[in-house]
Amino acid sequence: MRDVTAIIAGRGALPALVADSLGRQGAPFHIFELDGFAMDNPAGLPVERFILERLALLFNRMHDLGVTQVVFAGAVARAALDPERIDAQTAALLPQILPALQQGDDATLRAILQLFTEDGFQIAGAHEIAPDLLPEPGILTASQPGPVDETDAARAAEIVRGLGQLDLGQGAVVADGLCLAVETLPGTDAMLDWVADVAGKKRPIGRGGVFLKAPKPGQERRIDLPAIGPDTLARAARAGLNGVVIEASGVMILNRAETVAEADRRGLFLWVRPA
Amino acid sequence: MRDVTAIIAGRGALPALVADSLGRQGAPFHIFELDGFAMDNPAGLPVERFILERLALLFNRMHDLGVTQVVFAGAVARAALDPERIDAQTAALLPQILPALQQGDDATLRAILQLFTEDGFQIAGAHEIAPDLLPEPGILTASQPGPVDETDAARAAEIVRGLGQLDLGQGAVVADGLCLAVETLPGTDAMLDWVADVAGKKRPIGRGGVFLKAPKPGQERRIDLPAIGPDTLARAARAGLNGVVIEASGVMILNRAETVAEADRRGLFLWVRPA
Repeated sequence: MRDVTAIIAGRGALPALVADSLGRQGAPFHIFELDGFAMDNPAGLPVERFILERLALLFNRMHDLGVTQVVFAGAVARAALDPERIDAQTAALLPQILPALQQGDDATLRAILQLFTEDGFQIAGAHEIAPDLLPEPGILTASQPGPVDETDAARAAEIVRGLGQLDLGQGAVVADGLCLAVETLPGTDAMLDWVADVAGKKRPIGRGGVFLKAPKPGQERRIDLPAIGPDTLARAARAGLNGVVIEASGVMILNRAETVAEADRRGLFLWVRPA
Repeated sequence: MRDVTAIIAGRGALPALVADSLGRQGAPFHIFELDGFAMDNPAGLPVERFILERLALLFNRMHDLGVTQVVFAGAVARAALDPERIDAQTAALLPQILPALQQGDDATLRAILQLFTEDGFQIAGAHEIAPDLLPEPGILTASQPGPVDETDAARAAEIVRGLGQLDLGQGAVVADGLCLAVETLPGTDAMLDWVADVAGKKRPIGRGGVFLKAPKPGQERRIDLPAIGPDTLARAARAGLNGVVIEASGVMILNRAETVAEADRRGLFLWVRPA
């Protein structure tokens, strides 16, 4: 019997890209979507929905389907648990999750991974299944970073490294050496919109700067590798930035061709920068 | 001849509070306001304006007036220098300032302090001249922090300490252990407004959390001690927070009676927390 993969899907384009990659490899898979975090599903792939309060039922269902490998794909925010919906089997798992929920993202992810592995599932990273999501180092666009952009990128990388040690976000915007914004709970899109509408107006020159995204040091890369896509570039352009920088081997590009085309259309650079 | 104090004034209520304190002590003073950063001046105190590009002329003027002591009071943002306005004497000071300007706030402040001290001025902190600006540890309001608020405050203090090591802002908002926002260049007000309008909506429960403000570790306390006032409490209330926490001996309260009254009116706590 062939290995069956379960895609645990959240919001965005990633789950369908992983499914597409598995499909092209002829590998059987099932998609399970976390209730409330609908994936982009342009091809109308069949999807089963699950709720966190009945995680144990998901495990049973995956075993029934012969699932051996699990890949987490897509964005989920930490949701409140509805005590009335928790089944007895899942309730038994709670002592393991709840303390972690109170310790920040990394601890939560590790606890969830452990639940899956203890139940016998192998965890694969989305980038392991679809390696073309992780581009080689280089500048992918016609526009190239200048010396100020390089200095801003280095400062942003230093900031994101520091934030990671605090278990905070994975991105920062730096313009002319000044930190305009760092990523927190609301995420990249909210941060870039804020730079466009508020923080960016504090720039001495009114435009310029870079958005840099990198994984946290020691981040659990099988489950939570950050990603950008065409929309990230559109938002960075609206924020008046010169370009977007991602850490090589650490950040995925969803729909690379479209993302690069969006950057080129708006005159931004997209730089895959070695750590 | 008595010592004459120069108040180097920026935006907000602090310069007038320092002037008031000096006046009550019968100590002679002059106020010099940085062009573009008008201080709150309800009593209509006489104010001379200066521009950074002619800093050397300010030094000359202060010597003429017999100034021996300088206190920096009020908020200034880093402004662009207009090369056409720089006089020859100030130009000679630039090699000392410009490299610092590119290294972040702390380095800039240290360079500016050094220019003043090299010219023979003593630097005093606003809180040294008006010690009632720095409250004793304790909870100043009717509303008191609960256990979750205490945990949130501890997490926020940890984050602000980490941000300080990166020479970033001095504040963070944490709700139920989740970091909603951290202070960057746009400052406290912009951050709290963002929590009210955007980031706060990501809270599982929709409200709650604390805003904590603390000085950076190793911060130059004579020039840049952070401050809160009644407006900070009003904004924190609009952001749905439970209270405001400031680090004892490190953050000033402007108009303490009004600030506490504002907190009480809105049901928030104001906690002066030992570091």
